[in-house]
Formats: sequence, C-alpha cells, structure tokens
Amino acid sequence: MKAGEDKLVKRIVKALAPNPGPWLALGVGDDAALLTPRPGYETILTCDWFLEGSHFLPGKHPADSIGWKCLARAISDLAAMGGKPKCFLLSLALPGQLTLKEKGRGSRWLNEFLGGLRRAARRFGCVSVGGDTTQRREILINVTVVGEVLAGRAVRRSGAKAGDRVFVSGVLGEAELGLQKLRRSARISPKNNRALRKHLYPEPRLALGQWLADGKLASSMIDLSDGLSSDLPRLCAASGVGARIEAARIPSPKAPLTASKRFDALGLALNGGDDYELLFTVGANKAPRMPRSFRGLALTEIGEITRERRVVMVQQDRTRKALLPRGWDPFRK
Amino acid sequence: MKAGEDKLVKRIVKALAPNPGPWLALGVGDDAALLTPRPGYETILTCDWFLEGSHFLPGKHPADSIGWKCLARAISDLAAMGGKPKCFLLSLALPGQLTLKEKGRGSRWLNEFLGGLRRAARRFGCVSVGGDTTQRREILINVTVVGEVLAGRAVRRSGAKAGDRVFVSGVLGEAELGLQKLRRSARISPKNNRALRKHLYPEPRLALGQWLADGKLASSMIDLSDGLSSDLPRLCAASGVGARIEAARIPSPKAPLTASKRFDALGLALNGGDDYELLFTVGANKAPRMPRSFRGLALTEIGEITRERRVVMVQQDRTRKALLPRGWDPFRK
Repeated sequence: MKAGEDKLVKRIVKALAPNPGPWLALGVGDDAALLTPRPGYETILTCDWFLEGSHFLPGKHPADSIGWKCLARAISDLAAMGGKPKCFLLSLALPGQLTLKEKGRGSRWLNEFLGGLRRAARRFGCVSVGGDTTQRREILINVTVVGEVLAGRAVRRSGAKAGDRVFVSGVLGEAELGLQKLRRSARISPKNNRALRKHLYPEPRLALGQWLADGKLASSMIDLSDGLSSDLPRLCAASGVGARIEAARIPSPKAPLTASKRFDALGLALNGGDDYELLFTVGANKAPRMPRSFRGLALTEIGEITRERRVVMVQQDRTRKALLPRGWDPFRK
Repeated sequence: MKAGEDKLVKRIVKALAPNPGPWLALGVGDDAALLTPRPGYETILTCDWFLEGSHFLPGKHPADSIGWKCLARAISDLAAMGGKPKCFLLSLALPGQLTLKEKGRGSRWLNEFLGGLRRAARRFGCVSVGGDTTQRREILINVTVVGEVLAGRAVRRSGAKAGDRVFVSGVLGEAELGLQKLRRSARISPKNNRALRKHLYPEPRLALGQWLADGKLASSMIDLSDGLSSDLPRLCAASGVGARIEAARIPSPKAPLTASKRFDALGLALNGGDDYELLFTVGANKAPRMPRSFRGLALTEIGEITRERRVVMVQQDRTRKALLPRGWDPFRK
C-alpha cells in the first residue's frame, strides 16, 4: 500500500527525469538535496510565488505555460545578477482531482504542467532536485532556484553611480499586452501572437546577464518583473541615486493594426509586469561601446542615473514628471 | 510613495535583523542572495509548505508558534542528514489586513509571527537571506532552508542494511497528543503542557543528527514528520530493505491522569505526525555501544532491519502484523 503523496512525488520525479552533473551529490528522494559547490563560485539563491488567481488564471492559462513560467520567472532573478542556474526545488499544492491517474481532465492538467516545467528546466539547464507536495483547493506553486556566479562577479542592484547610462533589453509592455489579449479571448494561439507568447512563455535573459557580468559591463542590474515604473525606483533606492529617463526612448509595443485610439503603448511599457527583460546601468565611459543588440535582442539606452534621488521622466513635449510606481503590486488596490 | 509590498519586505527585514557570517556575500534586498560555500562542505537544500487550514489553524495556533514552527520543521530535514543550518528564504502570502501597521489585531499577528520566526532563527543559527511576499485571502508559508555538511558525511535514507538496529530519539506521538488537546480547548498554555509545547514549538534534533553523522554512527536516517508508520517504510523503501519493530519498545506518551480508557498511546506513537524526532539505523557491531540518551534525549532501540522487504510489528502478544502507513498524508482521506 502506497500513500497518495508518495505516488505524486514519484510521478513528478519521473516526469522531470533529472540528469545531473557531478555537482549534485544527491537529488530528489531523500530528506534534502546535496550539492557540491564549485570552488571559486558563489551560490545564488532565490524563490518565487506562483499562485492560482493571483499570478495565473486556471481557466485562461494553459497548464503547460504555468509549468514553464513558474520556473522561468524564478530564473529571471538569477539572470539579473549575471548568474547561471543549476537546480530548483518545486513546492506544489494541488486539488486532489488534478493528481488522479485516471484518464481525464485532471491527469491531463498535471501532465501538461510537468511537460512545460520539463521543457523550461532543459532549456535553462536547471535540474529538479526536490521540493514538497500537499493537497489544496487551489493550485499553489513556489519555486526555489539555485545558481552560481564567479566569485565577485555578481551584478547587484546597488552599484549604480550618477552619470551611468540606463539600458533596457527587448521591448517593454508586451507581456502585459499579451495578458490583456488573453483576458479578452480564449481562442488565441501564442504561435501567431508575439505578445501572448511573451506573457505565457517568458525567456529570462540569462545569456545577456552573464555577458554583462563576465565583461564587468553593468554597474547595477535588476529584472523587470513588476514594470519599469516600479523596478527602476527599486534599483535607484538600492544604489542611493535617482534617474532621468526619456519617454521617447522607451521601447514599447507597436500598436496592433486593429488598435483603438485608447492603445497606450507608453503606459504598457512603464507599468506592465512580467516582461522579465533586464534593466541595467553602464558607466558613461563604457556606454558608447555598448552594441545596439545582443544576439538579436535590442539593447536601448533610455536615460541616465542622477545624484538627485528622484526618478523623473522627460515627456515627449520635454516637460518632466515624477515617475510613480504603477507596476504590479499585490498589496495595492 | 512606497509600494505596499516594499513596506512589508522592510518590516520583515527589520524584524529578522540578519547578522550573518563571512559566508554571506549578499543577503536580503537584491534579486537573490549570494552565499560563499565553505571548501570541503556540501550544500544541503530543502523546502516545506506550511499552510493555513492544512498545517495550522489560525484560530487555534498562536502566530508566534506559526513563525517558530515553519522554520523548525524545515530545519528538521537538515537534522535528518546530519547537517547544520546556514540560512533560509521565507515565502509569505498574507491577507492585506494582517500587514497594516495600525494598532490592532492584524499588526499584532505579523509582529508575533515574526517574533516566533526570529527566536527560531537565532536558536538554530539560521539567517534570513530573502524570500517573496504577496497578498492572499489565506496565510500561505513556504520556507527554503540551506545548510552544510562535511563532504561525504551526510546520512541518507538509503544506507540501511539487513541486521542494522533501528533507533528513535525522544518520545513519539506527543505532538499529535498536543494537537488533540489544542483542538479540544483554547485555554491551555504550552508552559504547563509538554505535549502541547512539542506540537507548537518543535525542536529539530540538530545536535543528535550532527553527532550521528560526524561519528559515522548512523547508516541511514530520516526525521519523523508524518509518523513512524509512514516514515519507517519510506526509509526501508529507499534502502531496499524491510524492518521488524517491537510494539513494546516504542517510546509512547504516558497516559494523562485524566485519561479515558480510549487513550491509545501506541496509536499516537505509530501514526502521530509533527514529532520531528530522528529515526536512524546503526550497524549491529556499533549498536551495543550506543548510549541510552544523548544530552538528555532518550535513544531507544525499537527493532531491526530485515532482508525481507516488509515492515512488520511484533505486538505485545508476540504475534506479528504488517505496519501500514497511517501517518499524516495530505492526499489520503
């Protein structure tokens, strides 16, 4: 006789099929995992909630996307330090019917979820080494990710200096646009829609983050998870500085052909969450040598770090206004 | 203007006041924490759910106990490998009113929760290095703990051999008895009640686990979180062996003076969860030299590992019966 929880754990272990390197002394199945750290490297550690109703809508978000995204967004925090992912712990709470092995909707959900998670784990080189499971009315997910970075090379939020230039990768606000599309319609495929794809299957900017860290190019860095208007002030506060950015330079989504007059590209770029692009600063002497793109991903200079501890935006008409944090905040309403 | 989540994070950081050692390159406040592993040591990694309604009852469990226990039970997994805790990540989802700074019940809850967590962190030498916060109708907690163990010395579940003796620490079933008391009455103080104290403020057996690992005394080990009848079969399955234990030897709670005839001490000891005692095996040649107690904590030999892959219990009348997993399982009902 097997207990229910043990069965679920076996299923997860089988689906994620870890194939670890020599650094993993002991993976899933014991009280805890055992890792052998590489000499000369620091260990990076972070975790993230991903909760039904708060972070995803079970009627709208495919299980495959939930599996992919719960890992991708946690890994994005490693990218923002220039780190490389090594392994993760999955804490999963599920309604009992989603764990039943019988054919039907429940079992399919779990298979698809684990499929998306497995694809992300392989894509980002991050091995499953354990976690915790329990039963719950709603789907609750928490992911802990462990990575490594050459000792002393991690890029922090706190290193920005007055005069540094402010850069962002990619286009901002697309993921929020994708979420709006998803809320409006159930019959839209991510294959044909770039914004929806970015919302459902974000790509943490690992290669860019590592390149910026290895070359000592970035003086500070943060990933854009809540939105530029919330995350830039966080970077500035950690560095004890301010910033002045130019609205006209911020890379924002292109209006779709069918867009109404109300399409607010700048608002999406400033306040939209879930982009997982990188926001980083580069010393004034190094900034002119920054390429316009890195492996096909646009790198855009949007402003400058200032001594004065305020974050302001120069608008299209050249007037300035304070940038208020209007990105995603679970405690604001 | 500060966002709500940033305020909550500041409050948590202030309450937990980390005072780390040289191994912590970067603590709370960045995208992720940075640890410098000690050469010659392996890193241990584990995480645990602690959810309102599933693992604690907000009307019954004091906030101080919830804070203590969410960390203590995660640390117990490190104890079960002979490890030493280093740091933890706290993922906390809370109803908005519990985060309000105004005087009143809400704010008091958070203060008491953080107070219990801080006491546990100091007691077990485990430093807060980060986490994630969000808003939620119910209190959701997930704790990730990182520890270290001398390379090659971690005690696994999988090392038990036929002929090894089976030991447990302490008394089994007391925490379950404490839970039953708590459910029946609201006016009971843990000060005067050992069982309730054990349920509310468990002590992971860190010193015992490290002593067993350092001296290479235990061939396998697991912590008793769900109950002996569930956790012993897990250890046996991992080791590819069986076990025969003696009912008369299992250290069970003493019947209270007011106990009714229905007081089932053996049932509590077999199937009660949350004890966080250690279950371990010792080679037949080393077992006779095992002390009867370690620093005041009883060590009791309760049986033997067998080649035959079944877990059986010799009852008081000397008949044998299969030990079925009747400990806590969130997926059984």
